[in-house]
This record gives sequence, structure tokens and C-alpha cells, in this order.
Amino acid sequence: LASRSDGPVAVVDLGGTKFIAAVVDGGGKILSRLYCPTLSSEGPEKIIARLSESIRQAIDKSGEKVVAVSIAAAAIIDIKKGLITEAPNLPRWINVPLRDMLHEEFRMPVHLLNDASAAALGEHALGAGRGIDNLIYMTVSTGIGGSLIINGELYQGPDGSAAEIGHTIIQINGPKCACGRFGCLESLASGTAIARMARQKLPSHKSSLLYKMAGGKIKGVTAEQVTVAAKKGDRLALSIVEEAAGYLGIGLGNLVNIFNPQMIIIGGGVSENGNMLLVPARRAMKKIAFRLPARTVRIVRAGLGANAGMLGAAVYARLQGRLGK
Amino acid sequence: LASRSDGPVAVVDLGGTKFIAAVVDGGGKILSRLYCPTLSSEGPEKIIARLSESIRQAIDKSGEKVVAVSIAAAAIIDIKKGLITEAPNLPRWINVPLRDMLHEEFRMPVHLLNDASAAALGEHALGAGRGIDNLIYMTVSTGIGGSLIINGELYQGPDGSAAEIGHTIIQINGPKCACGRFGCLESLASGTAIARMARQKLPSHKSSLLYKMAGGKIKGVTAEQVTVAAKKGDRLALSIVEEAAGYLGIGLGNLVNIFNPQMIIIGGGVSENGNMLLVPARRAMKKIAFRLPARTVRIVRAGLGANAGMLGAAVYARLQGRLGK
Repeated sequence: LASRSDGPVAVVDLGGTKFIAAVVDGGGKILSRLYCPTLSSEGPEKIIARLSESIRQAIDKSGEKVVAVSIAAAAIIDIKKGLITEAPNLPRWINVPLRDMLHEEFRMPVHLLNDASAAALGEHALGAGRGIDNLIYMTVSTGIGGSLIINGELYQGPDGSAAEIGHTIIQINGPKCACGRFGCLESLASGTAIARMARQKLPSHKSSLLYKMAGGKIKGVTAEQVTVAAKKGDRLALSIVEEAAGYLGIGLGNLVNIFNPQMIIIGGGVSENGNMLLVPARRAMKKIAFRLPARTVRIVRAGLGANAGMLGAAVYARLQGRLGK
Repeated sequence: LASRSDGPVAVVDLGGTKFIAAVVDGGGKILSRLYCPTLSSEGPEKIIARLSESIRQAIDKSGEKVVAVSIAAAAIIDIKKGLITEAPNLPRWINVPLRDMLHEEFRMPVHLLNDASAAALGEHALGAGRGIDNLIYMTVSTGIGGSLIINGELYQGPDGSAAEIGHTIIQINGPKCACGRFGCLESLASGTAIARMARQKLPSHKSSLLYKMAGGKIKGVTAEQVTVAAKKGDRLALSIVEEAAGYLGIGLGNLVNIFNPQMIIIGGGVSENGNMLLVPARRAMKKIAFRLPARTVRIVRAGLGANAGMLGAAVYARLQGRLGK
């Protein structure tokens, strides 16, 4: 059993925009990898068919015999039942029994966990959080996800739905969020929020670099374009990143007051802004948090980048394998 | 050592308005008890002198030889150093080494923890949370405190300052909070917030029972008076309790999304409103929380009332005693 749980694992990192299928060996090495667009509007059935096909291709490409399948999904997951219960960025995924469907298909142990939980496990085992017992992982991209490592272990809550820190309200009656509520942290500090701020500000900033980059197509401006323009020193783009960072810092301050964590690791596309994001976010956090936990916490960028979810999904399969699950 | 840790413990529950000194035996029975006004404006030195004197009196009154002193304080506590680092409702308590000061005085093990942590331990060992592994305790009174039981154990964070859920921001630029920040949950859903709402609304509701109860002294109206008037069916008072409950529910929804807890226990004076508070708070929580964790969580009133902090402080001393601390 021990040797079996150390064998290669087929993993999927399923997001609202794209998914990655890969095979990861016992040492955390990625043996094969495929990137695919999620095409989220197609709904669960078609997406799952493409997921399965991509897993097969990744296995074939690796030339290995895998011992388990492990899926990290941007969704609220019922870990006991292996269900995707809902997913703000995956329309119509309501109570989808993904674990059992893939078990039917692959006839081997299948594990299903939240993508941010997977990334936290990856960062804790192999990345920025090595040796840290109490940490929060936060992914800031289209949405905002989170995950908690408490006393050295992943805390998912009794159902497995814990750590949805993107969907905590920091501004009652704030902007509408992808989840349907108003004023969630995600609605103010995510890539989606950054793009919205850019759309609102561009009409009155037509001399900005960001406006040029958008080619006059204000509606189509992206958070990635804001990052690129900010890195080139565009003042409008910098002010947008700083505004989002201020909101992010409020979310961080709330978490520091709740958890007194040793570290908060920020991953996801928006973290590509680096210090343009982290410096004002830390400053805002310190205004919210009490002195003692504010002094303790280190707020750092993720170490594994886009691989964290895949690597963590493999770590999770191994941990569950050792528990005989 | 085991027998020693089961002996009677002298405990203090130190709040911004009053403190209680007591002696609690190994079975959770309160052998003696004294209530004293804190007179918080007097500052730490005078208050500590009165604390010590009250502890002595409680010990004398019990007729027992105590094995430890355990202090539950409404404060941000550095558990490693035994310091009260700051306390929103205790002016000038900055980095006060209360543990060592009392050890000097009493020459026995002294333990210091947050009052909500103590109450959570009490409720978990002897009250509403018996047998529940993942729960949040929330005290709603002058301020709002919190505490986390995770996987059956008190989680205080590496410094001991975790679970300050009253000081998480749910309304950016909201009302000023006792901690100096704006829009904390405490500033919208505590007894202090209820009294503020009453002061704001009374001038335009002079025919209300609450106005009569306040005897025209609008500035002096208290959250307790609002509770009494609401219980008698006063519509103004009911609407104030309901408004505060709505905010409380947002705080609860945030916690449900973060922790996926099995139970949230509400204690403190404001919880005396019972279902007038809990029914609308649960309704607001369900609007915020995801379906899965919203279905799991039970939101209940505390079982031990005002004794939770004392009993929990004694539980804590015993747990620490067993660990040889």
C-alpha cells in the first residue's frame, strides 16, 4: 500500500477559464501536462467528457501506470459524497457526482478537493510554506479562493467547503459578485474587480497606456492588461492595482484577526503584480489587524506558480492513499 | 501531577464593565464567587490590585487550597509571554505582563487566555457544544468576541490572538468601532451598536415603550433596555434588534463560508434576545453562506450563560496542567 500510494498520480486543475490535466510522480515531478480551455458555458456533461479524455492523454503521454486520479476544482465540494455542489465560475455544476463518475471511468481511487486547498497543500509541501504550521493560502485570479493549513494539516471543515474567503462580505451592498451576493472580497479585489475598475475609469483616461493597449475596446479590457500597463509605469493602471490591493488588504486584515496565521501566501494571476500589489495590501492589512498578529504574519507570493494546484492534488492523493481512503 | 491538576482553580473573568473572581472545583462546580465593577478608566495598576484582592477573597470564601490561577480577559493576549497586549474595552492595558505579576503574588501556576476562548472551552466541555469537534463561540455583549474549537481543540493561533471575529470589517467606512477602526462587525451588531441605533431612532419614536423606559434620557439608553422593550413587543425595539441581527447574520455567514463549522454558539448579553435575534440572524446568514455549509451549521444560544468564561478558565488551567505548563 505504501509503495502504491507513492506511484504517479493523474491530476486535473479545473478552473472557470481553463483546465490542466497532468501526471505527477511521487517526488512532485510533472511527467506530462495538457492545457485545455474549460468552455464553462458548455455545462458539466461535455466538460467532464473532455476532462476524461484529457486525463487519458496525459497518462498516455507520461508512459506511466498511474495509481490514482485527483481533481482540484474551483468549486464548493462535498468531500464526503465526492460532489461538486456549486461553483461560482462553472455554470450549472450543481451537485455533480464527479468523483464517482470518474471512478466509473478509470477504475482506481479518485479524489476530489477544492483547487485552493490543493494549492495550499502544494505550497505547504513543496513551496513558500514549507515548515510553516499555520498558514492561509489565497488565490487571487478571476475569483478569490482560499485554504487553511492549521496545526500542519489541511482544514477543509466537516463537509469540505471551508476557506471560501473570497466570499466573505467586506462591503455590505458593494459590487455584485460572481456568486450572486454583493460586496464579497472577490467583488472588490479579484481580477474581475480589476477589469471592472478599468472599464469604469478608461473613458476619462484616454491618454493612458492602458487605453492604448485596450485598443479603444474598453469593454474587453482585462486584469492581465492592467498588470502589464502597471509594470510599464502607467499611472492609471497603477492606481487600479493599488485600489484593489487596498481591498485585498482589508480581507487580509480580517484573516489576520481571525487566524493569527504565521503566513499568508498569495497566488493566482493577480499576484503577478508582485510588490505593486503586496506593498499596499500589507499597508492596508496593518490598519485593520491588531498589533500582535500583524507583527507575526508574513505575506508572501506563492512559490509554485500555476503548478501549485496540480502538485497539491497529487500530495492529497498520497495523503488519502496512506489513510487508506 | 495529575491529581494536582484536578484540584480547585481560582479564576477571573475580566471584562470592560465588571470582573468576576471565583473558585471552581475539578468537576466544574463553582465554590465561591465575587462580582466587582472593573472601573476600566482607573487603568491597569489599580484594577490589578483589586483583581488580586478579589482572588484572595474568593479563595478564602471557598475554604479550599487552590492549585492554579486562571484569568480570562477581554483582551488580545500574547499567550507565550503572558501579556495583555491591548484591549479595546480596557483603556491603557498595553503589554501588561499580567501572568507574571499574578505569579509573583500567588506563587502558583498562572494561566492567561482570552475570555471568549475560555467561554468556548467551557461550552465545549460542559455546555451547548459537548461532543462537537468544530465549533465557533461568539460572545455578543458590549463588544463581540470569538473563539474557535477546531478538530476538538481550542485554536488560539501561534501568539494566542486568533478569533477576533468582532474586529473583522463587514462595512468599509462603517460606524466607528471601540477598537478605533470603522465598520467592524462589533460596530454594527454589538450591544454598543444596539444602544447607538436606539439613540438615533428615539427622537422620532417618542410614542414607543423604549422612549418611556429611557425616561426621556435618550443619551443613556442601553442595549439591555432595548431587549426588555422588545420582549414586551415594542415595535421600535424589535426593529432595532432585527437590524442588529441582520448584521450579525452577515458576520455568521462569513464565518460559515470560512470554517464550515458544525455549530456556532452565541453567548453574551445580546443573546438574551433569544429568537428575536437568532431567527433573523439565521435568515441573513443563509443569504450569505453557500448552501452546503449553511445546511450543516447549527446556530444556538450558549448553555452556560455568564458562567462559561469562569468554567472554561478552569478547564484551561487543567488542560495546561496536564501538559505540564
